[in-house]
Amino acid sequence: MRLRNKPWAKEYIENNSHIVEQQPEKWKNKWKERFGSDHPIYVEVGSGKGKFVNELAEKYPEINVIGIELYESVIVRGVERAVEKPKPNLILLQQNVEDLTEFFGKEEIDRLFINFTDPWPKKRHAKRRLTNAGFLKKYEEVLKREAEIHFKTDNQGLFEYSLESIANYGMKLQNISLDLHQSGMEDNIMTEYEQKFSEKGMRIYRLEARLH
Amino acid sequence: MRLRNKPWAKEYIENNSHIVEQQPEKWKNKWKERFGSDHPIYVEVGSGKGKFVNELAEKYPEINVIGIELYESVIVRGVERAVEKPKPNLILLQQNVEDLTEFFGKEEIDRLFINFTDPWPKKRHAKRRLTNAGFLKKYEEVLKREAEIHFKTDNQGLFEYSLESIANYGMKLQNISLDLHQSGMEDNIMTEYEQKFSEKGMRIYRLEARLH
Repeated sequence: MRLRNKPWAKEYIENNSHIVEQQPEKWKNKWKERFGSDHPIYVEVGSGKGKFVNELAEKYPEINVIGIELYESVIVRGVERAVEKPKPNLILLQQNVEDLTEFFGKEEIDRLFINFTDPWPKKRHAKRRLTNAGFLKKYEEVLKREAEIHFKTDNQGLFEYSLESIANYGMKLQNISLDLHQSGMEDNIMTEYEQKFSEKGMRIYRLEARLH
Repeated sequence: MRLRNKPWAKEYIENNSHIVEQQPEKWKNKWKERFGSDHPIYVEVGSGKGKFVNELAEKYPEINVIGIELYESVIVRGVERAVEKPKPNLILLQQNVEDLTEFFGKEEIDRLFINFTDPWPKKRHAKRRLTNAGFLKKYEEVLKREAEIHFKTDNQGLFEYSLESIANYGMKLQNISLDLHQSGMEDNIMTEYEQKFSEKGMRIYRLEARLH
């Protein structure tokens, strides 16, 4: 993702701390309190410009949605969306996914989304891929036993890697699609990347993983 | 596969019983004797017209190769190839893969190939797919512990199914390719189907599975 410098972003984010929670570690094991409801919690890691989480939260008011994105100049776009159209069930975290277990307790999350994340194609960067075993272990720590991970990408190499990584970690695979937009899947919320790539006729790959 | 009636096939196969072993159950646990060498044994299930096994046996004289194909009018083409260019390390079995464990003993096989087999697209026929758990169990019974299963297909639905079936059975996945002929894989022996489909620009999917 191209990062543009947005000097106003930092202040804008801080001024919208009802949307971008500034102290997520304070809410570990207490996110239901933070949302004010005991609805299921769905998390997107690497939520980018926030199109997906905003639409998910709008479409499913009975789901509490959290998007995690590190970069200020990127996450701010998701904040703007949430300011334009407020959603009480959406929270953004400007954080590193590496630190996931600092903000979430055991079995606190009901579903995890990984959408069009950086493929890190060089082998020496494999550990940075969000479907690497190190990340899967963190997800496992915070996900409910029956939870699902939903993963989408346009990147063939990342999908091949992720199939192996997730299966060999011992998770179960289901609803694999090697060409999502030809598979007649309903109820698909598109990310900005997905819209762009699928309009170009590129294949979108998708899988669901279960811990058990 | 279209089956043409070949009235001469039955006799031709019987006359070439050095190629098509007529009593495979007799050699259970003794295939090394049958081949007259203790080289590794690679088996292709659903070997069709036998292009793959003939080329494999020719290319690797230090590997003993067995192709299993049920249909007389299909397997006969593989016999003709083997008559035209004899290979002492190739045996064909005109048998049902269902009966695999009747011909092979525990850990008797070093590698198993599944190439472009019938996708059986209807859900009620899923049990007939050669990557169904029922078949995986049979393969497990006859494969060595460190053995690999190599699977190729042009059929997207069958590949999606097989990824889930193999991973959820508990096997490990490696070297997945979602576009084999663009992946720069060397040393790929093509089946007749593969040649035809890849010439049309269709994707070939491939994976390797390990029991452990």
